[in-house]
Amino acid sequence: MTLFVDMDEVLADTYQAHIDVYNSEFGASLTREECYGKEVWQCVPEEHQQSVRQHAHTRGFFKELPVIENSSEVLEQLNEKYKVYIASAAMQFPNSLEEKSDWLDNHFSFIPWQRRILCGYKHILKGDLLIDDRSYNLERFNGKTILFTSPHNVNTKGFDRANTWLEIADKLL
Amino acid sequence: MTLFVDMDEVLADTYQAHIDVYNSEFGASLTREECYGKEVWQCVPEEHQQSVRQHAHTRGFFKELPVIENSSEVLEQLNEKYKVYIASAAMQFPNSLEEKSDWLDNHFSFIPWQRRILCGYKHILKGDLLIDDRSYNLERFNGKTILFTSPHNVNTKGFDRANTWLEIADKLL
Repeated sequence: MTLFVDMDEVLADTYQAHIDVYNSEFGASLTREECYGKEVWQCVPEEHQQSVRQHAHTRGFFKELPVIENSSEVLEQLNEKYKVYIASAAMQFPNSLEEKSDWLDNHFSFIPWQRRILCGYKHILKGDLLIDDRSYNLERFNGKTILFTSPHNVNTKGFDRANTWLEIADKLL
Repeated sequence: MTLFVDMDEVLADTYQAHIDVYNSEFGASLTREECYGKEVWQCVPEEHQQSVRQHAHTRGFFKELPVIENSSEVLEQLNEKYKVYIASAAMQFPNSLEEKSDWLDNHFSFIPWQRRILCGYKHILKGDLLIDDRSYNLERFNGKTILFTSPHNVNTKGFDRANTWLEIADKLL
């Protein structure tokens, strides 16, 4: 079985990083819970939205992202059992490309370069399962899908869902 | 029809760049013809091989690659007719990732980020046709293939082959 795993908000806590950078920059105290059902930029005053939307274009942003709890341990076990690829729609942010490669070297070095994919559309991936936080990626994928919970997708219906990597372990190991 | 097109030695003349950098560094006069059937590093004295093998790890190497003749004009026409993706096995060279994105912006800006793929293995791509200079990519691809001629593959048998982009136009337009 070939398994594709997204990076941002599945392995890397990009969502929390947006909140942390915003709170630090504006002395705010935005929480994840306040953001449920929205993107972070939609949860800040209008005059700060442009700043939040610039995070992903900022050098360094993707370099130090926190690792989502249990993702490394569970993915390493999945990697023993399945053909695991990491697939990130990163081409939108050229500044992120090398940082993402470095981040994988630091935290997911057991996934070799041959199984790393930086792309745009994900429906061109041929495999059996896609784990992703974006419903538009899952909808067009030609295989099974798991929606990984992120604050922005808590209200999304119609997908098999995992809230944590331990739930993914339960489903797949 | 979904079409995947490789970058190095199909759109970008990486092979010639290896020769040019080598000739410039060592005051040599290696030609493409002397390299037929081999990689560039295999065509230089043993004491220079390590230097040639470092080119792809050197910052700047992928930034200024020459565009292969007629590739831009023909690909732009193919892009009107088919779903064209560019797929480069670039993950081996993290230093190349942003340079490749910039190079595409400069020379193939009509291919948007959604249709750009930096990957390792290419057999995970789901589509109808792969144009590539590496037989190992074509062998495992689950669709039609065209081997694009590069000095290193002139002796490779068993593939539908195109020597130039005008030949690709003849086949596909």
